[in-house]
Amino acid sequence: MERHAHEEVEYLKQRLLYMAGLVEEMVFKSTRVLLERSLGMFPEVSDRETQVNTLQLEVDDLALKLLALQHPLAGDLRFVVSAMKASTDLERMADQAVNIVQNAKIIIEAGPAPDIERMEEVPKMAEEVRWMVREGLNAFVNRNVELARSVLKRDNEVDGLKNRVLQRSLSVMRKESSSEVQCALSTVLVSRNLERIGDLATNIAEEAIYVVLGKDIRHHAEEHGA
Amino acid sequence: MERHAHEEVEYLKQRLLYMAGLVEEMVFKSTRVLLERSLGMFPEVSDRETQVNTLQLEVDDLALKLLALQHPLAGDLRFVVSAMKASTDLERMADQAVNIVQNAKIIIEAGPAPDIERMEEVPKMAEEVRWMVREGLNAFVNRNVELARSVLKRDNEVDGLKNRVLQRSLSVMRKESSSEVQCALSTVLVSRNLERIGDLATNIAEEAIYVVLGKDIRHHAEEHGA
Repeated sequence: MERHAHEEVEYLKQRLLYMAGLVEEMVFKSTRVLLERSLGMFPEVSDRETQVNTLQLEVDDLALKLLALQHPLAGDLRFVVSAMKASTDLERMADQAVNIVQNAKIIIEAGPAPDIERMEEVPKMAEEVRWMVREGLNAFVNRNVELARSVLKRDNEVDGLKNRVLQRSLSVMRKESSSEVQCALSTVLVSRNLERIGDLATNIAEEAIYVVLGKDIRHHAEEHGA
Repeated sequence: MERHAHEEVEYLKQRLLYMAGLVEEMVFKSTRVLLERSLGMFPEVSDRETQVNTLQLEVDDLALKLLALQHPLAGDLRFVVSAMKASTDLERMADQAVNIVQNAKIIIEAGPAPDIERMEEVPKMAEEVRWMVREGLNAFVNRNVELARSVLKRDNEVDGLKNRVLQRSLSVMRKESSSEVQCALSTVLVSRNLERIGDLATNIAEEAIYVVLGKDIRHHAEEHGA
């Protein structure tokens, strides 16, 4: 029985690592679409998303069975519960990679725009984030606190890079325009904040259905209505 | 023992509902700051965030103790596990409300900008989203599948409103500018997607530390380095 629980935790680890590998690849490919201005890898990113969605359901299912049948305690209990949260986060990362290829498409179709192209922060961000995805998961499955702390430190650098992109984009916009551009941009960001709050409320509603019916409706578009 | 577990699930519900009430208030106040162009409620929103963070740790702790000591099964097991995910989502909603007041401050300080002000989609979005926060949580704690499905349907409307804000902002920007504005905006969005992926990797790293040390470092800025 003890042995059995250990094997199941090990299998859960392997599936999470596999899922993280796919997500890391999606992040890499989505930023290559943007940086090489080539839509060739666009479909590979969207196809992978479906696979990541399926893996999320699988990981949650494995974790739930483990909780119900093995009653893990202390570190193992925390690991299993945290694995479910990690799979949710990985799935949302995959969604963001899809957003990136969609925005890359808009940028490519808008034609050459040298001032923006020369933003060296974006490839740097892409590289940092890819490292964070890989090592964050490694820290998690190998229960490596020091590695986890390095990931947290790296997050500050990524935030700094993002702020530089924002400032530089604003200065491009200001070149030929007024404070209306600043307002328009902030309004877009507010609408995205609100949309994100809506998405999170949707997650809770999905959890509600899951608790009652015991079936997982995440990623099943038909449940989301017309 | 059975009775005891039931009482603890009930208490978990009450704390989640209380947390959701605070988040709903934050969403309401953050959008009032924006719509009334008054920073008066700015500090109330930031203060509430700390309270929501503390509640998230409390809910997780309650849920974990329930799993370890009561071994809930079937619907109750799913409820407890989902409650931990719901508290994570509520906490991230609170972060978004803080983002909203920060963007509102930028918009207010940029001075009057009538074209953007007249965006009737933002108050509509704010109202819809507030409803979703409240009813999503109600559906969850009351295990009400029909109500949960209405929340999912409402999410499509919010997505549509967000796309209208995006299109309208772009047309404001295009008025006096070139395709560079489109590129600059898309680049900002990509940098936000990347930053968000970094945040999610950070969550996983935090889970890693939690699994090993059994202590919760979320919301403890000192762990995130300089």
